[in-house]
Amino acid sequence: MEIFRGRRLWIESRMIRLPNGIEKKRVIVHPSNAVAILPIDGERCKLLKQYRYAIDQYIYEAPAGTMEMGEAPLQTAHRELIEETGFAAQKMQEKGFIYTTPGYTDEKIFLFEARDLSPSREYGKDEDEIIEVVDVAISDLSAMVRDGTIIDAKTICLFHHCFGC
Amino acid sequence: MEIFRGRRLWIESRMIRLPNGIEKKRVIVHPSNAVAILPIDGERCKLLKQYRYAIDQYIYEAPAGTMEMGEAPLQTAHRELIEETGFAAQKMQEKGFIYTTPGYTDEKIFLFEARDLSPSREYGKDEDEIIEVVDVAISDLSAMVRDGTIIDAKTICLFHHCFGC
Repeated sequence: MEIFRGRRLWIESRMIRLPNGIEKKRVIVHPSNAVAILPIDGERCKLLKQYRYAIDQYIYEAPAGTMEMGEAPLQTAHRELIEETGFAAQKMQEKGFIYTTPGYTDEKIFLFEARDLSPSREYGKDEDEIIEVVDVAISDLSAMVRDGTIIDAKTICLFHHCFGC
Repeated sequence: MEIFRGRRLWIESRMIRLPNGIEKKRVIVHPSNAVAILPIDGERCKLLKQYRYAIDQYIYEAPAGTMEMGEAPLQTAHRELIEETGFAAQKMQEKGFIYTTPGYTDEKIFLFEARDLSPSREYGKDEDEIIEVVDVAISDLSAMVRDGTIIDAKTICLFHHCFGC
């Protein structure tokens, strides 16, 4: 049964059958899939300081966005990087994907590492995106995670995939 | 406006006011907050191979669970570790928290590192939890993230917080 259908999110309640045969009614949230991109420029990377209404807070995040209808993850990555940071990337390397909360949603975020950046003329944030681009030394990222400055899950996962630890 | 209210999840649609004054109608998903725990035993740690109906797949995850009413994160961590792995921890160290997807939900997962493990008599999985405990060498975790064996966001974040990189 459909509970809600919005532009980028639909929610259903349905009977699920577990591998052990048990049947339960469960709610599943289906957001659009998304991408997150870590733009790297030498020893530094670009993050966003972004206002998130769901938590009424500004947080540090990697550039990210949802896939439009018909878009492949790589296309979304190029588009969102330009829209959110004003930089285009010559190299966009796929770094796998994560499930954000597989307990109740099938949302997948595809991860990308962007390099060879240059300013783009197509810069254009959506009016409801409250974003500031910040330049951060890669050597500072681990400390920023440990001290709670970076608390966004996809961003921390990107660090793991881009820096191999 | 409330769209749905379940036992562990409620969903609302409401007008939000951004810091730039723009008002928009948005859906916000409010799951219960949760904890995730990495139980460490010397050079190895315990993960779960767990069936997740939202993605119809078995995935590797750190033990985790939602906070019951009135429960503090530390209590949930001790309880869930026992329920899901059959091991109790003498030491349970707080490792901060993450937001799973701050784009549309305020869900927070508190992270813990568990040590000094011993078998517990209180072992008891919920009937709808399809779980197998697996022992993994800590030195294998990075490769398991990179090759896509571990795709669960909270689990990857835990590695970052527990192993400092």
